[in-house]
Amino acid sequence: MRKGRLLGLGVGPGDPELITLKALRLLQSAPVVGYFVAKAKASKGQGGNAFGIIERHLTNAQRRLPLVYPVTTEKLEPPLSYEDVISDFYDTCAAQIAAELDAGRDVAVICEGDPFFYGSYMYLHDRLAEHYEADVVPGVCSMLGCASVLGTPLVYRNQSLSVLSGVLPEDELEQRLREAEAAVVMKLGRNFDKVRRVLQRLGLDGRAHYVERATMDNQRIVPLDEVEPLASPYFSMILVPGEKWRG
Amino acid sequence: MRKGRLLGLGVGPGDPELITLKALRLLQSAPVVGYFVAKAKASKGQGGNAFGIIERHLTNAQRRLPLVYPVTTEKLEPPLSYEDVISDFYDTCAAQIAAELDAGRDVAVICEGDPFFYGSYMYLHDRLAEHYEADVVPGVCSMLGCASVLGTPLVYRNQSLSVLSGVLPEDELEQRLREAEAAVVMKLGRNFDKVRRVLQRLGLDGRAHYVERATMDNQRIVPLDEVEPLASPYFSMILVPGEKWRG
Repeated sequence: MRKGRLLGLGVGPGDPELITLKALRLLQSAPVVGYFVAKAKASKGQGGNAFGIIERHLTNAQRRLPLVYPVTTEKLEPPLSYEDVISDFYDTCAAQIAAELDAGRDVAVICEGDPFFYGSYMYLHDRLAEHYEADVVPGVCSMLGCASVLGTPLVYRNQSLSVLSGVLPEDELEQRLREAEAAVVMKLGRNFDKVRRVLQRLGLDGRAHYVERATMDNQRIVPLDEVEPLASPYFSMILVPGEKWRG
Repeated sequence: MRKGRLLGLGVGPGDPELITLKALRLLQSAPVVGYFVAKAKASKGQGGNAFGIIERHLTNAQRRLPLVYPVTTEKLEPPLSYEDVISDFYDTCAAQIAAELDAGRDVAVICEGDPFFYGSYMYLHDRLAEHYEADVVPGVCSMLGCASVLGTPLVYRNQSLSVLSGVLPEDELEQRLREAEAAVVMKLGRNFDKVRRVLQRLGLDGRAHYVERATMDNQRIVPLDEVEPLASPYFSMILVPGEKWRG
């Protein structure tokens, strides 16, 4: 019996029109559609952000396979560790998907942005791609969604771009931002205050732009010095575009 | 009279199916379609790579506006300088497009990959967006096209990504690659040999992947040590994915 195929589909940064023709075609061809979702949303019967982007394209015949994150924070009380809990979770997801693939059904796993650019899909891919046919459709990543809504070119000509995580220790963040010609800082949330402090110290705050939920309906562009640190959501980002090159 | 609107449309890395629904809709709505093209191709009546991606979607009623690069190399004989020549060229392109916008016609300028990620469109945007309504549709960038065809996650969890240009001086390239957790090196071409040498010196060559024309019909994935340096085309790239994180 022919095994099913695993499809990792990037569905773009939020605007449902920013899905590619290819991701849409493969999404509609798959009998099973998997998606990651937070426990709080799943318990209310909701899908995650990526699911909201593509739900309109699904038929009733397509089975929904919610993959519900067991935790909402990386800080757990010992003896629990985030690494162990999340690793077990991905093992379980992979086993669920493998059962579908073994039964000959293709499974599309949808990913906000791009599957291989910080997407949870990659942990399934690393577990399954040796054993099953697996195809990945790249998507528009969130940082380019941000640049587009800001109307600001991100990197010119031969400039280097540094994509950084807000969880970096303050001194490392400062060093990497000092050496960057253009930069993107993701995963702000509770790290926002630290990131802004570093940008101010480096004199980069004037060049930095802050965006929440770029390309989504509830998108917000806020001046950096007016951001309320504790209210900064997960889907927020800071861009420090490269210096303009006249070309 | 209402002025036209400037549209910067990312059309993705090469596979025509990797265009977004939004870019396609706006492309088909625009009476004028601008595209950058090399002189050698234009003189044979051909469009550029981006034009090849979208040509199938155009009607005869849509006017083609080729923007023909005046030079094919950045090394010019004095007293010519690349900066001056290319700056004059973008001024001329902007004036041509402004004339269309002033006449009330929307102009879509198509860009391989994403408009604000090393795209030539940004030089038009910087000249025109103050004076005209300008909207940018982000696209799937080439580095994520590469990761997808390699089947290799690019960056895990909290890793930093460095996007570097192959034109960097050898010592700077080495320093930036040494500090990178994951890296992409673009603009290889005649810089290929230097980049490979640096990767070998850092012991990163085993983790590096080389791809030509990712997602295009004539895509090639070649082991790094088998690449013929002088034959490496402009649309080639090296990816050094981050170390796998089990998740």
